[in-house]
Amino acid sequence: MTRSELISQIKQKKSFLCVGLDTDINNIPEFLLDEEDPIFEFNKRIIEATADLCVAYKPNIAFYESRGIKGWESLKKTWEILPKSCLSIADAKRGDIGNTATRYAQAYFDRERSGLDFDSITVAPYMGQDSVSPFLEFEGKWAIVLALTSNEGGLDFQTIKDKDGLMLFEQVIKKVNTWGDPDNLMYVVGATRGEAFSVVRKHAPDHFLLVPGVGAQGGNLAEVCHYGMNKECGLLVNATRSIIYASKGRDFADAARLEASRLQKEMELELFKAEII
Amino acid sequence: MTRSELISQIKQKKSFLCVGLDTDINNIPEFLLDEEDPIFEFNKRIIEATADLCVAYKPNIAFYESRGIKGWESLKKTWEILPKSCLSIADAKRGDIGNTATRYAQAYFDRERSGLDFDSITVAPYMGQDSVSPFLEFEGKWAIVLALTSNEGGLDFQTIKDKDGLMLFEQVIKKVNTWGDPDNLMYVVGATRGEAFSVVRKHAPDHFLLVPGVGAQGGNLAEVCHYGMNKECGLLVNATRSIIYASKGRDFADAARLEASRLQKEMELELFKAEII
Repeated sequence: MTRSELISQIKQKKSFLCVGLDTDINNIPEFLLDEEDPIFEFNKRIIEATADLCVAYKPNIAFYESRGIKGWESLKKTWEILPKSCLSIADAKRGDIGNTATRYAQAYFDRERSGLDFDSITVAPYMGQDSVSPFLEFEGKWAIVLALTSNEGGLDFQTIKDKDGLMLFEQVIKKVNTWGDPDNLMYVVGATRGEAFSVVRKHAPDHFLLVPGVGAQGGNLAEVCHYGMNKECGLLVNATRSIIYASKGRDFADAARLEASRLQKEMELELFKAEII
Repeated sequence: MTRSELISQIKQKKSFLCVGLDTDINNIPEFLLDEEDPIFEFNKRIIEATADLCVAYKPNIAFYESRGIKGWESLKKTWEILPKSCLSIADAKRGDIGNTATRYAQAYFDRERSGLDFDSITVAPYMGQDSVSPFLEFEGKWAIVLALTSNEGGLDFQTIKDKDGLMLFEQVIKKVNTWGDPDNLMYVVGATRGEAFSVVRKHAPDHFLLVPGVGAQGGNLAEVCHYGMNKECGLLVNATRSIIYASKGRDFADAARLEASRLQKEMELELFKAEII
């Protein structure tokens, strides 16, 4: 999915919601456990219930990988039913030296090799250029690079200042900017860091930002929009647990839709206020 | 495998060699392509030819992941035949927020869930404490944290200095040290950075260091030992391409053995010089 297609979807759906599919066998409704592939069944019903309200889906690969081969099977089946109107994000946070990074790119972007063909993948920047660039060589694909993350440990290294007062996440954005452009690069910026969005926007005014941490992690949507939205929206705000585990009963898909709808309404208001729609 | 067991293996085998199993279907001898699982067959013969010469095996997960489900099957079969006398390292470079990092730990350390039970995993530090600690909670397992890597991009961020002149990789080591101890933590330090080993040893005198980059990447074993060896060896030096692709003919396993043996002899000399054996 190209940048202009993504922007067009955001305007059409009046939403910049990304739904996280971090599906945990211990957290899904019990009645699904009788299904042949409970994880896939859960995802399928969540996707059906939310597809018109969101513009992206983001399975976190760890939840599938932890189940071994059957987990990869659930992931593949889930990828196959992701709607074309939504950006598909493999939240894998991969990062390795050049020739190995190419393998990771193939794992998520090259269906003939791996069975998967996501639109984008999250990438860790620690190993530098040759660990990121291979993902940018795939036409029409996105690398979404970790900048400032929403977790507690995000402050351990990402905000260390160099002698000029520039924080590590700023240096990451400045340097990674030179390896691609806003058509194939996004950054991960946690919603729990509201005030930091203005710093991020100094270095990346045009890039889309993938924003986890709204909902269960406590991030505030209005604050994120205030500091982080640009004239084309430039935000994909992810919610996971607050949507997919909104109910643990038979009504889980309806409850997920209700919560996604609540977020979509908030987003519609923000898009309207910013005169994007 | 515990630290004392590892040291005992190093003394017994007179070797601190780690063999990388970055097995690429395009680089293995053609005659193996007739096998049902050529990747596994290749690994099996490499392992049989080198098991008495090395103390660790390190499959890089990207090479398996890029082949989708059949790649994970090859990895599982390979893991099953790794000799108990060798430390098994899942070179996965994973890193994600706390609850997700736990899933990655389960993927490599919890056989009942995933089918795999490696001794150790490589971990990326960018996301901080809650992305590393879950790996340390598994009794008898190791987290091998990226510090200073051997690739070109390793200098993009890892050597940025803070206002006190401390480089990022030094800060990583100093902080990660407080999350575990030399019995469950190692660091990745690239062999291409000989002079940097003395800096690493200032902060981590006792930890084992996993050292990629000898061989194809141009690192020098004698230099690594000069600056990096401690009184219990404290080094696992990895070679991959120079061993596993020593020949592309029917003699590939013999050629691999010859190259592993050459490295083992060099290592024996270094261990002898350091009065470890």
